[in-house]
Amino acid sequence: MPNRILPEKTVERLSEYRRTLLKLLDEGKNHIYSHELANLHNITAVQVRRDIMFIAFTSPHRKGYNIKELIKVIGKIIDPKDPYNVAVVGWGNLGKAVTAYFAGKRPQLNLVAAFDIDPKKIGSEISGIQCYHMDRLREIVIAKNISIAILTVPPGVAGDTAKMLVSAGIKGILNFTSVTLNLPPGIHHEYYDMITSMEKVAYYVKKQKG
Amino acid sequence: MPNRILPEKTVERLSEYRRTLLKLLDEGKNHIYSHELANLHNITAVQVRRDIMFIAFTSPHRKGYNIKELIKVIGKIIDPKDPYNVAVVGWGNLGKAVTAYFAGKRPQLNLVAAFDIDPKKIGSEISGIQCYHMDRLREIVIAKNISIAILTVPPGVAGDTAKMLVSAGIKGILNFTSVTLNLPPGIHHEYYDMITSMEKVAYYVKKQKG
Repeated sequence: MPNRILPEKTVERLSEYRRTLLKLLDEGKNHIYSHELANLHNITAVQVRRDIMFIAFTSPHRKGYNIKELIKVIGKIIDPKDPYNVAVVGWGNLGKAVTAYFAGKRPQLNLVAAFDIDPKKIGSEISGIQCYHMDRLREIVIAKNISIAILTVPPGVAGDTAKMLVSAGIKGILNFTSVTLNLPPGIHHEYYDMITSMEKVAYYVKKQKG
Repeated sequence: MPNRILPEKTVERLSEYRRTLLKLLDEGKNHIYSHELANLHNITAVQVRRDIMFIAFTSPHRKGYNIKELIKVIGKIIDPKDPYNVAVVGWGNLGKAVTAYFAGKRPQLNLVAAFDIDPKKIGSEISGIQCYHMDRLREIVIAKNISIAILTVPPGVAGDTAKMLVSAGIKGILNFTSVTLNLPPGIHHEYYDMITSMEKVAYYVKKQKG
């Protein structure tokens, strides 16, 4: 059952549940009811129970789900078996912010390199991550076994850079640019879209104001 | 019908459709079929038609939806009637990147100020947006009629900063920090969660590799 491909929204929620559960565990909590988890995520308890049944996790315990076990099961479902190596491509303000934010956050997603074309940036480091010249992309991707790229280049070069990433062997791209990419099948591509998030906030602010 | 509150996922998709439609219009395209729009977003044509029926848009034209009209209807549904003013709070690498990215992108979401506590940053500008000291938050929020904040401060001060934003009169927060905020009802709060997006990419890369 957990071997079939889960819908995107389910994967998202599992990731979000885990973030909450890790925080609660850290605060000393050991069990949680579906309605508590639901409240923390502004969704229904039915949705939480459905998601958790979906990953074949059952918790007969009257205290609710065992948090540590649930974290483990979510990890088994969504995490790679072996860590994936990740590169940040484009080392402007955004690329640097992403590097600082992301470095060391998830052991299964290992940030190992950054790339840029600005000679002033090559060789510099943030949180132990070194910046390489784009000329060395293919070489470093192979040497460091990088399979995922975070794309933070200017919009004008996003398309060409994505093509270079694919041809260097990258299998998944998290796209921070506002550019729609045309990628071959088999390359997973996720937009990290600021404008959509802003528009959602604005929509619900409008609805609250009536 | 368009006056009820739409589900978050629908608002998201409408925002994404509009981004695509604006691009297509810019490229000289005037009409689009639901299956074309569906292909561009990796979803089913049924989903696209359902979303568009949901906002009471009908297009009897055999050439497909009129792109210009569809953009207008989506705007009517999701955009504020009058522009909202927006502030970036926390002007490190991420705050600056967000400012440069966001300034001028959507006329109905008007970036008007940035805030920080670092004296070196106060008074500096990016894309015409000036940075003010947090001490002046309340004053500037009122003077500039700011209703939405983009939160890009370090995690350690995120909770306290959010409280200050709410007490200064902010109605919606786009949260870029990894911190779960406890906000009073009536404040819309959207996580812009890098880790979840990365975990989604990794999950689908794993599934593709088999």
